[in-house]
Amino acid sequence: MTKSLSGKNSYSQNEPLAARRIGLFDSGFGGLTVMQQIVKQLPHEELIYLGDTARLPYGNKSPATIIKYSIDNAVFLLEKRIKLLVVACNTASAHALAKLRQIFNIPLIGVIEPGAHQAVAVTRNQRIGVLGTKGTIQSGSFEAAIKQRLPQAEVFSAACPLLVHLVEEQLHDHPATRLIIRDYIKPLKAQGIDTLLLGCTHYPLLRDLIQDEIGPTVTLVDSASTCAAEVERLLKEEQLQRAAHNSPSHRFFVSDDPEKFALLGSGFLGRPISGVELAIY
Amino acid sequence: MTKSLSGKNSYSQNEPLAARRIGLFDSGFGGLTVMQQIVKQLPHEELIYLGDTARLPYGNKSPATIIKYSIDNAVFLLEKRIKLLVVACNTASAHALAKLRQIFNIPLIGVIEPGAHQAVAVTRNQRIGVLGTKGTIQSGSFEAAIKQRLPQAEVFSAACPLLVHLVEEQLHDHPATRLIIRDYIKPLKAQGIDTLLLGCTHYPLLRDLIQDEIGPTVTLVDSASTCAAEVERLLKEEQLQRAAHNSPSHRFFVSDDPEKFALLGSGFLGRPISGVELAIY
Repeated sequence: MTKSLSGKNSYSQNEPLAARRIGLFDSGFGGLTVMQQIVKQLPHEELIYLGDTARLPYGNKSPATIIKYSIDNAVFLLEKRIKLLVVACNTASAHALAKLRQIFNIPLIGVIEPGAHQAVAVTRNQRIGVLGTKGTIQSGSFEAAIKQRLPQAEVFSAACPLLVHLVEEQLHDHPATRLIIRDYIKPLKAQGIDTLLLGCTHYPLLRDLIQDEIGPTVTLVDSASTCAAEVERLLKEEQLQRAAHNSPSHRFFVSDDPEKFALLGSGFLGRPISGVELAIY
Repeated sequence: MTKSLSGKNSYSQNEPLAARRIGLFDSGFGGLTVMQQIVKQLPHEELIYLGDTARLPYGNKSPATIIKYSIDNAVFLLEKRIKLLVVACNTASAHALAKLRQIFNIPLIGVIEPGAHQAVAVTRNQRIGVLGTKGTIQSGSFEAAIKQRLPQAEVFSAACPLLVHLVEEQLHDHPATRLIIRDYIKPLKAQGIDTLLLGCTHYPLLRDLIQDEIGPTVTLVDSASTCAAEVERLLKEEQLQRAAHNSPSHRFFVSDDPEKFALLGSGFLGRPISGVELAIY
């Protein structure tokens, strides 16, 4: 292995950058819905996923703590020699993406910008609703990203702190979940939105219930597929696409309880997960 | 300040042990219900409370992670020169108390033993229900502590992972909270219990709703007042009671968001909280 003295391009000539993995992190399970889309759209790429399950959830913690944890996660993945980093968590994207861009020398993609892009693409009446964690909504990141693209848009946001827990307890069909969603959505429904952005990577698992409560005329959008398209675009631009590969294998790390992650995570990823490793950091 | 070479009794002669504070830790807010009882029963004592709000909740994390965090919390409080440590969190008591006793040279009290003591004292038909976090229930700690005192007792346990979040979102009166409690309690009700142990420091805030769902003939017990009585007994035994004190002041530390803790915590403590400090550890 040869390294340049400058530290730049410090990879071996025998290990082209394009052959490296794409890294993703999330506070826990939700980022697997983003991973699912990337794997689907970029079947030759190998991914490495880090879920900070020891310190989850991030959604109701302070910006300073989210930034600290995001830096820990990024360092862990960069030490694994990745070629691109996806912040597959809306709360971390909202609070920490700018700081990560300032610190780390790697292409970085979050989920706020792709979600905003998608919402702007589908709205007709320019009245857009956003659901997210307390942290994401308080940051105002979605509103800013939407208005940057469509200044005349009106954005109505609702913090939904319980939805992550209801999903993780697998109460997707419980009447209590419906009641709680109804309460969260009510003020947005009253505003006549035609587009509702699911601004947390857990919410796609509640899509049917949310659609049912908001009504059939409102289009639901989430960040996952647009984020995967952005990953594809950036890999092309940077000439980092991996050559065709018959059996890509993915790696999974968590900071707590690998067995539980393997069990619960398959519901988020849409395929079985095995070989989850414990991340000590 | 003089210190003995052995490290034992390493306090100054000018600072009697009895004048030191009682330390308490919890993953976040719930331990304040225990603090409330200690302050009420021991009005001359000064307390120092640590809430690990950056890494909460503990209830659904692995024993190894709970032990690690509990050690961090204990070290933080011992550095503040406390005379007694209360583990004011059922999950941490269930998983980490034995390890903390092994490591630290200080009187230690958890909330499992006091809760079990109280349940055994009030049951008539020896059929006792226990509600707790996943971690607490999976540990079997309450069942073991009850059967140690009353071997013929039958113990029926239910993990209630959502109740902590519903309390922290202040949905005490929401119909969804009632539906979720009804589901959790149903199997215990079917067993004809006459005593129900609220095995998590958050649950006393849901006491009315739980009583309503389990019915008026079942006695609810929680650890807080028995834990305070145990603190009193131990202080007497060790001659560590503080002399009469007109205006004891308490200190509060949290690992994330002191303002939020001051705001939300007053509901748990039953009095206003101010001067919350950020704990860096």
